[in-house]
Amino acid sequence: MYEFIERINEAADVKKFKVEELDLLAEEIREALFNRLTKIGGHFGPNFGMVEAEIAMHYVFHSPVDQFVFDVSHQSYPHKILTGRKAGYIYDDHFFEDSGYTNPGESEHDLFNVGHTSTSISLASGLAKARDLKGEKRNVIAVIGDGSLSGGEAMEALNVAGSELNSNFIILVNDNEMAIAENHGGIYRNLAELRKTDGKAENNIFRAFGLDYMYVEKGNDIPALIEAFNRVKDIDHPIVVHIHTTKGLGYQPAVEHKEAWHWCMPFDRETGLPTVDFGDGEDYTSMTAKYIMDKAKKDKDFLVITPAMPMTGGLSEDLRKELGSQYIDVGIAEEQAVAMASGAARNGAKPLVITNTTFIQRTYDQISQDVCINGSAVTILLNYTSFAGLTDVTHLGIFGISAFSNIPNLQILAPSSKSEYLNMLDWALDQNEHPVIILIPGNAVTDREADRDYSNIGRFKVEQQGEKVAILALGDFYQMGESLAAAVKEKLGFEPTLINPRFASTIDTELLEQLKEKHSLIVTLEDGILDGGFGQKIDAYYSTSDVKVKNYGLEKKFYDRYDPAKLLEELGMTNEAMVDDIRELL
Amino acid sequence: MYEFIERINEAADVKKFKVEELDLLAEEIREALFNRLTKIGGHFGPNFGMVEAEIAMHYVFHSPVDQFVFDVSHQSYPHKILTGRKAGYIYDDHFFEDSGYTNPGESEHDLFNVGHTSTSISLASGLAKARDLKGEKRNVIAVIGDGSLSGGEAMEALNVAGSELNSNFIILVNDNEMAIAENHGGIYRNLAELRKTDGKAENNIFRAFGLDYMYVEKGNDIPALIEAFNRVKDIDHPIVVHIHTTKGLGYQPAVEHKEAWHWCMPFDRETGLPTVDFGDGEDYTSMTAKYIMDKAKKDKDFLVITPAMPMTGGLSEDLRKELGSQYIDVGIAEEQAVAMASGAARNGAKPLVITNTTFIQRTYDQISQDVCINGSAVTILLNYTSFAGLTDVTHLGIFGISAFSNIPNLQILAPSSKSEYLNMLDWALDQNEHPVIILIPGNAVTDREADRDYSNIGRFKVEQQGEKVAILALGDFYQMGESLAAAVKEKLGFEPTLINPRFASTIDTELLEQLKEKHSLIVTLEDGILDGGFGQKIDAYYSTSDVKVKNYGLEKKFYDRYDPAKLLEELGMTNEAMVDDIRELL
Repeated sequence: MYEFIERINEAADVKKFKVEELDLLAEEIREALFNRLTKIGGHFGPNFGMVEAEIAMHYVFHSPVDQFVFDVSHQSYPHKILTGRKAGYIYDDHFFEDSGYTNPGESEHDLFNVGHTSTSISLASGLAKARDLKGEKRNVIAVIGDGSLSGGEAMEALNVAGSELNSNFIILVNDNEMAIAENHGGIYRNLAELRKTDGKAENNIFRAFGLDYMYVEKGNDIPALIEAFNRVKDIDHPIVVHIHTTKGLGYQPAVEHKEAWHWCMPFDRETGLPTVDFGDGEDYTSMTAKYIMDKAKKDKDFLVITPAMPMTGGLSEDLRKELGSQYIDVGIAEEQAVAMASGAARNGAKPLVITNTTFIQRTYDQISQDVCINGSAVTILLNYTSFAGLTDVTHLGIFGISAFSNIPNLQILAPSSKSEYLNMLDWALDQNEHPVIILIPGNAVTDREADRDYSNIGRFKVEQQGEKVAILALGDFYQMGESLAAAVKEKLGFEPTLINPRFASTIDTELLEQLKEKHSLIVTLEDGILDGGFGQKIDAYYSTSDVKVKNYGLEKKFYDRYDPAKLLEELGMTNEAMVDDIRELL
Repeated sequence: MYEFIERINEAADVKKFKVEELDLLAEEIREALFNRLTKIGGHFGPNFGMVEAEIAMHYVFHSPVDQFVFDVSHQSYPHKILTGRKAGYIYDDHFFEDSGYTNPGESEHDLFNVGHTSTSISLASGLAKARDLKGEKRNVIAVIGDGSLSGGEAMEALNVAGSELNSNFIILVNDNEMAIAENHGGIYRNLAELRKTDGKAENNIFRAFGLDYMYVEKGNDIPALIEAFNRVKDIDHPIVVHIHTTKGLGYQPAVEHKEAWHWCMPFDRETGLPTVDFGDGEDYTSMTAKYIMDKAKKDKDFLVITPAMPMTGGLSEDLRKELGSQYIDVGIAEEQAVAMASGAARNGAKPLVITNTTFIQRTYDQISQDVCINGSAVTILLNYTSFAGLTDVTHLGIFGISAFSNIPNLQILAPSSKSEYLNMLDWALDQNEHPVIILIPGNAVTDREADRDYSNIGRFKVEQQGEKVAILALGDFYQMGESLAAAVKEKLGFEPTLINPRFASTIDTELLEQLKEKHSLIVTLEDGILDGGFGQKIDAYYSTSDVKVKNYGLEKKFYDRYDPAKLLEELGMTNEAMVDDIRELL
């Protein structure tokens, strides 16, 4: 079945084929991708569109002497198959050997662990600079999708490459006319013009950055690609090779529905339908979408801003259209999204920025300077906030509280139920004083009555008044706190106090002071790393008192592809282990 | 003396002048700038170059209905003089009413507190979007210098403006052919071409972003500017107005030495020489420059990367030239600087990135993803790390430890003396395992013997073995710890233990455990906010024990233009107050 793939054990093996055999190899690679993706899911469209280009790259260049840096690495699976990692694609019991991203731990052909966009040109520019410093000779090739070009880091790098690197440097722009969703921004009109004119349009964005430029219309044609790569191989200056590819090529549903097929769950190849059961319970994503649509109708000042990835807020193409001028997707451009929101708030709009926790890291400075120093009432809604969400090292949500709870003026709200989540959204959007981050809970949807007003900043809520031990269970770890409280009662024979802090960034000093009366131990639970987080603010409050504090949460560590339940066990966060700790500390 | 300025009490007053009187007004504004800048210093070149443009802006547009957003706001003084704030320039006893940056607290004509570059287009795009949403009518004008265009956020915003805003939006590019230092990047060749061709060069970078474009060669000619602004006033789509100005115009030394005169200390107008005495003691900046030059000679793998502002590492134009290929200035592009360093480390270079603490915030994500997940041995050297350094709200160094000490794999070294600083630099650059941040001490240079090897990560140094109280005095607060230890001995009659932690991000759990034996109180001192910082890691370690911990440092707060000595007093960080605390806690 995998006649050609079976003959590839190392990168150089692809060079042994005749050019006319490479189309068959491409076909087999698509079969191998189907094998993995139908069964365990992963990035679909970017990989299917880049099969030919990656074959041609390995045919012309000599990895790892020549170095490839794949932007965001959603498109790196064919490269993995071609560099000794076919097993992870053709043998089902080897799937878990390969991560979904480039990973130097897997192979010397992967230069970096990469999962955020727009970094490949920067990283590769450093490789090239060090190569020149050491007098080495190798081609350095940065691969970047058109969607990633709108990110600031990518443009900073184009600008530097355009004048400060005066040696071999190849930027392979994979133009499939899409980001994850459709592209947004003026440069995409420029790319369209370039495609239409076989690369001859005026005001070429790459030439404007000072770069040499070559256009390859047939981006899925192996001989055309080989010819192009041979022309730029060993070139003595930076050049952009702009190739036009078809995202999802080889699977009609993916070609027709590019956004839906950027990434896939396990699916049935015949029908294109997912083979995993999502259950029919409520989920926070569709709840968010519904909230947004209702709010937009009621309030004409409400403005939704997404830095690409609108689906993380449940905003399908139809909903985006319906939002009309109350919605703007700025493309992959988190800094712009946050600063724009600050400007919009300044002129009386009620901006809501939506993205994933791991990507908001890009805007630490914008949140601090553009938003918080200016006291702009921007609401930032974060998805994948939980350790139980995305577990790839490049996509962890566990650093959010630590990173953002120490910026002055910023309030991080951690809802513990559906009503609390929706009420917090209402409050955050309608007030005009505080920059707010809301963490979408990462656990199953539960509901309880919740307050509507959060203007008493830092006010924790005592959900159950008890004694001896007070459990401060933050956000989506509240249910864990409930369960622990019950276990304490059962095993230790007294009812502890249970508190829903709600605020992750500001502590309720009045309540903490009161707790001293009847409590000798405070337990904190948070869904994130402990360092710099919520629990350590509680430690600090009690550090000069006799009250003891026990923090539960994650370590300051780059976890990678773990089993969340097992991790909780390792961290001593089972009821049994925590009750033992409490018994000992009392 | 200020005949025309005296007649300006509010923004509209400038409109009462005849066009031919405006040159005299410009002359007076320069006199007012001289008055302030010779006496208290501030941003020189950007303001002197923009006098005419800002007069023309206020002559044509109607602030605050029409809204101006000044990028980084180094150039906003003429605007301040024209909007009711002349007193801060012409009356010496009013200087301190005005900050050196735009500030909504001062005037409704200032939209944002701004001090970081490359944000004006983003912020203004939000103003424009909200205006449209609310159906209001006003011109929104983003002013940005050519130097700031290389920052990712600015380019993200150009891209969004180029296609997603379809209404009035004016981007005024103030091209004075300089960043703070010279520009770096391909777009500057493009700007040069545009200047040479009266805006007609091919591959126009702004048009490539999808924007309309107009060039004004005479950027210091009021009638030409008025004409241009009248043409774009009330325009119905985004446009770039590219004006060519002369940085420092009106003072020959500033025109000739643009980098030196970007910003000035109080100076003598006749000689151009500073009128403040710097003393002749050693300083960390020249020490850093000397170290860099020596290291570069000895080690050909050593690579210095600056995201503009080379002078913060003492790298004058001559030294930069001498470094040759071992130096790269990427322009204002912090993300590129850090990610490029990671790439360079990957290929065996020893990269040192130098900037100010407040600007490194821009790279939280690059440090986490591009550097730390990849374990790249990048050394980042930060200046203005101390609360006693830059005191403007937009430039505070006090958030550095809090922001970066919670990223896994990253080691923050806080040297407490000259030898320790230099030894840490040596160690950081020559090892190949750890991403490292080194905080340049903010106090006067002192020296003590220091270790050469820091590979025992997180190992604190006991400088004086004592009892009862252990003082952990971090980095440039070490001397404060020494003084406190002496005061404790004198006032309380026992010798406390004095510890130089050296590591701000990793704690010495072995030592902390040992301290329990003879100590009941730990005191921490750090030059930064307490939230998320060093002391709270110590609190966390002892939170379940009987040892008490008292943290000293700054509050989580946007301090603005304070007196450092007075602030220490308010924070209870005098020996007297701290000894009282200790007495009470023992």
